[in-house]
Parts: sequence; C-alpha cells; structure tokens
Amino acid sequence: MLTGIHIVIIGGDARQLEVIDKLNNLDAQLDLVGFDRLDQYFHGVNKMDLEDIDPTTVDVIVLPVSGANNEGYVESIFTEKKIQLTKEWLSETPENCVIYSGIPTAFLLECERDCKCTLVKLFERDDVAIYNSIPTVEGTIMMVIQNTDITIHGSNVIILGLGRTGMSLARTFDALGAHVKVGARRPEHMARITEMGLEPFHIKDLENKVSDVDVVINTVPAKIITSLVLSQMPSRALVVDVASKPGGTDFRYAERRGIKAILAPGIPGIVAPKTAGRIIANVLSELLLERFEKTDN
Amino acid sequence: MLTGIHIVIIGGDARQLEVIDKLNNLDAQLDLVGFDRLDQYFHGVNKMDLEDIDPTTVDVIVLPVSGANNEGYVESIFTEKKIQLTKEWLSETPENCVIYSGIPTAFLLECERDCKCTLVKLFERDDVAIYNSIPTVEGTIMMVIQNTDITIHGSNVIILGLGRTGMSLARTFDALGAHVKVGARRPEHMARITEMGLEPFHIKDLENKVSDVDVVINTVPAKIITSLVLSQMPSRALVVDVASKPGGTDFRYAERRGIKAILAPGIPGIVAPKTAGRIIANVLSELLLERFEKTDN
Repeated sequence: MLTGIHIVIIGGDARQLEVIDKLNNLDAQLDLVGFDRLDQYFHGVNKMDLEDIDPTTVDVIVLPVSGANNEGYVESIFTEKKIQLTKEWLSETPENCVIYSGIPTAFLLECERDCKCTLVKLFERDDVAIYNSIPTVEGTIMMVIQNTDITIHGSNVIILGLGRTGMSLARTFDALGAHVKVGARRPEHMARITEMGLEPFHIKDLENKVSDVDVVINTVPAKIITSLVLSQMPSRALVVDVASKPGGTDFRYAERRGIKAILAPGIPGIVAPKTAGRIIANVLSELLLERFEKTDN
Repeated sequence: MLTGIHIVIIGGDARQLEVIDKLNNLDAQLDLVGFDRLDQYFHGVNKMDLEDIDPTTVDVIVLPVSGANNEGYVESIFTEKKIQLTKEWLSETPENCVIYSGIPTAFLLECERDCKCTLVKLFERDDVAIYNSIPTVEGTIMMVIQNTDITIHGSNVIILGLGRTGMSLARTFDALGAHVKVGARRPEHMARITEMGLEPFHIKDLENKVSDVDVVINTVPAKIITSLVLSQMPSRALVVDVASKPGGTDFRYAERRGIKAILAPGIPGIVAPKTAGRIIANVLSELLLERFEKTDN
C-alpha cells in the first residue's frame, strides 16, 4: 500500500483517470491539479491548484505522457486553467521527490539537474513500450482496414523494425493472414523473424522489396522510406508510420507520388484510452510500491 | 476460356468491376447494362441498355449481390437510369440460360419457376460464405476497435454461432489475444470449439455467460440476444450483430439499457470492396468455366 505517500497528479487526459483510480485504491494521499472539470468522483481525493500545495510535503509528482513543455506548462483536458510548473516550486520539494512523466522534455531534464528531483521517463521503459505496442497494433489494424479496399488477409505487408512494437505488429499481421516480410538490421533480429516463420530482409534492401507491397508499416525513427523506396512502390500501397515524430517517411514525396502515407504516433491514447491508462497505472503503481515499500523495510 | 459465351452483367457496385475484369480476361462476350457512368475502360466490352440486347442470344445473366427486387428493378451505382428485368424478356432467353445473383429474391424465384431459367444463389454457397467471412471479420475488428476504449487483446469476447463466419471470428479474435467464449448448439461445434482451445457453452446458457463480457458478436439469425440476456450484461459491453437483417439482438432494449449495439450485415462490400469483388469474380468464373467447358467436351 501507499498509505501516507503524498502524490500530486498534474494534468493529463482520460488515461490519467486509471492512474488516479489505482493510486487511490492503494491508499495514497492524492492531490489533483488541473482536474476541476472532471465529472468522475474519487472518494478522498482533493482537487487543488498548484499554488495551494506545500511542495515540502510532496513525495511524488505524476505528469501526463507529454510531460511539461519548455516553459513548464502541463497539458490537461480537464481544466481551462493554465498549469505551470516552475523550478522555484520544484526546488522546494524534498530531495527524494520523484517526477514520473511519459516522455522527458528539455524543461524536465533541466529540473532534474537543477532541482535535485529524480525524473522517471515511463515511456522509455521496455515494459511500457511493449504493453503499449498492443493498442498501437490494434490502432494500426484499424487504419489499414479503413484505408484500403482489400483485406489484410492475403495482402503483402512489410513491417520495418523488429523492436518492441515491430515484433507485435509482425506477429499480429501474420495471425490475420497477411504475407509478412520484416525489414531489420541486426543478425539476431533476422534469426527471430525467421523463427517466427516470416520473411526477413535487410533494411538496406528495402527498395528491392516493395514492388508488390500493399501495406508498409514503419516503426524505425529514421528516414528509411525515402523517395527512392517510394518510387518503387505501387501507387495503391498504403504507408502507416508509427515511429515517433517526424516518422521515417518522405511524406512530401509520397503525396507527390499519390501514395497514401499516414503518420500515426501516440495511437494507444486515441484508440484505447482505458487500456493505455491501465498500462501506465499498473507500471507506475508497481514502481511506487517498490520504491516506498522498500524504504519502509 | 469463355470465348463466345454471351454474358450480360446488369447493375451492381464496385465489386462488379472485379467480375467484369475477370470475365473479360476469360474472353467472354460481355454486355454491361447500367454502367453508363462507369469511368473505368474495359477493352472490347459493350455498354448497352437492356432493350437493345437480343435475349435469345444470352447465355448468362450476372446480377448484383442484391439480385432484383420484387418489381424486377436492379440496383446500380453506375447509372441514373432505372433498370427493370421483366419476365417477358427473361422468357425469351434460351432454356439453358443461367442467372447468377448474390441472394435470391421473390421475383427471381418466380422467374426461375416461370421462365425456365436456372438461378444460382452465390451467397448461399459455402465457399462464398467462407471467403466472405474474411472481410466480415476484419470489418468487425474495425468496429470493435472504434467503439471501445479498451484493446481487443485481453478483453472478454463472446462469439455466437460456429458457422462459416463464427469460426473465422473465433479464430481471429483468439489470435488477437482476446479471451474467447463461443456459444453454439450442436455437439460437433462444442467439440470443435474445444479443439480450438476456446471455451464452448450452449446458447441456451447465454444469459449466465455475459456478466463480465466486453464484446458480444452474433452470427446467428435468430433472436438470441434477448432483453433478459442484455439485462445481465455490463452497460459498457458492445454488441456487434453481423447476422443477416434484422439480426439476433433486441436493439430496442439494448438502447434502453444504454448498451451500444450495432447491426452490421453486408460488411465485405463496405470495408474491402476489391477483395469482396474478387471473391465473387473467382467463384463465378470457376462456375462458368465448369459449366461451359464441360458442355464443350
């Protein structure tokens, strides 16, 4: 349990409701900042403004997936008010105060350095990335079905990258009956793709693999779907780029060539906010229990 | 090849383009009725009005999936003109003339009886129904992703019926990581569901199986998702009813109970018109080759 641990949850979207629910069930002392328009009621949880919270009492700060921008502003869909974190406020938190954010931002990295806080980047964790690959795959399936006039079953699909998301995509499109080729670079990835019964190829050969492709799904955050690659694809092909912005596709050339190319990062919060929230809530609560139950003993 | 076989294709939607393309490649003599607004060009194919075709020369008539309504009118998205089949016209076709329709209608069954035509109901064939289950499954996946805030992976899914479509749904939702129970009646279906590693139950016990369900998918064309069953479901549950109209769900009660219930027959032509067209084109061309190449020998 997290009894007596003071946690301030600042801003966010529907996913944060799962976090609030979970931490509340673990008996943490919860203050919500930027939730004044939230309808849902959580027993024993306080809605506050940041300036009304005494920073010296704060053990944990939970930020949204997007963290805080370069001026310290935190996004929240549950308020009209602006919420701004400042170094002054953070400097007054105890030395062992931990900030949990989805992604790091320049401001948060500065705060970590200057305010002696610990910053935990949840979305850089392998477990979070693998759990998040599940809604990412389902969102990708949805987009492919919506944007083609053929079935996934029987279509020629290329997945680029066998990382945490690429592996899930490869497995699932194979299970749906697509003919799946996976482009990778590392020899152990080539071996795994082969073991999965799929066709591996080296990403440097991509331009020679796309002549009969129906769907290309990219997970690699580097410009690999170049104009040269696009020029070898049939114009009916669909590109779905789930790599983090700006993706790995030459979108300008794709449009010129008449190839539909979709940049779709951040799918989990859109297609399955409840599941995406539970993923964060589960990992976060495990990390907190580990940290604070350890301290107790 | 279908050289010299006179085929009249009357009306339809995007799916019929695949049929035209396939039969044209097989060298049939093709007349298109109700395609005057079609942009796509098919070499050697004639756009005609029905009255300009001499029925005594017609070997085959291909109707759309919907057939012809009770007054003989045939739907076409490629014309503004009304197209009406009449018994008089059909009576003049040769005795071995065959009409291929997706579904039979009262008018077509009358014509079969009165005009000595042979009527082939493509959508009643097992092969067509099984091939069509592929786009049906993908459309269902799309609807489930769009209409829930959780992932299919890890959700509790009930499939009703282990027929031609139910089998495909059960296999695919299992492959996506859902916890799948399948309701059926026949003992051999119970055995097959068990063999597939899924949980079988008898449809008469449905009301006792839905208390923790996230998604119910019905393929059975009988009122089995009754108000009693719906009253036992959590209000967050989603019902997708892919059985032919009017489906098997008490939609009025579902709405009253706040359960989202979607009647979604005819998915293939909507989500994957090209694949759906190819399915019809492949089966139709095989049937025609069988019929006419047999006659030759």
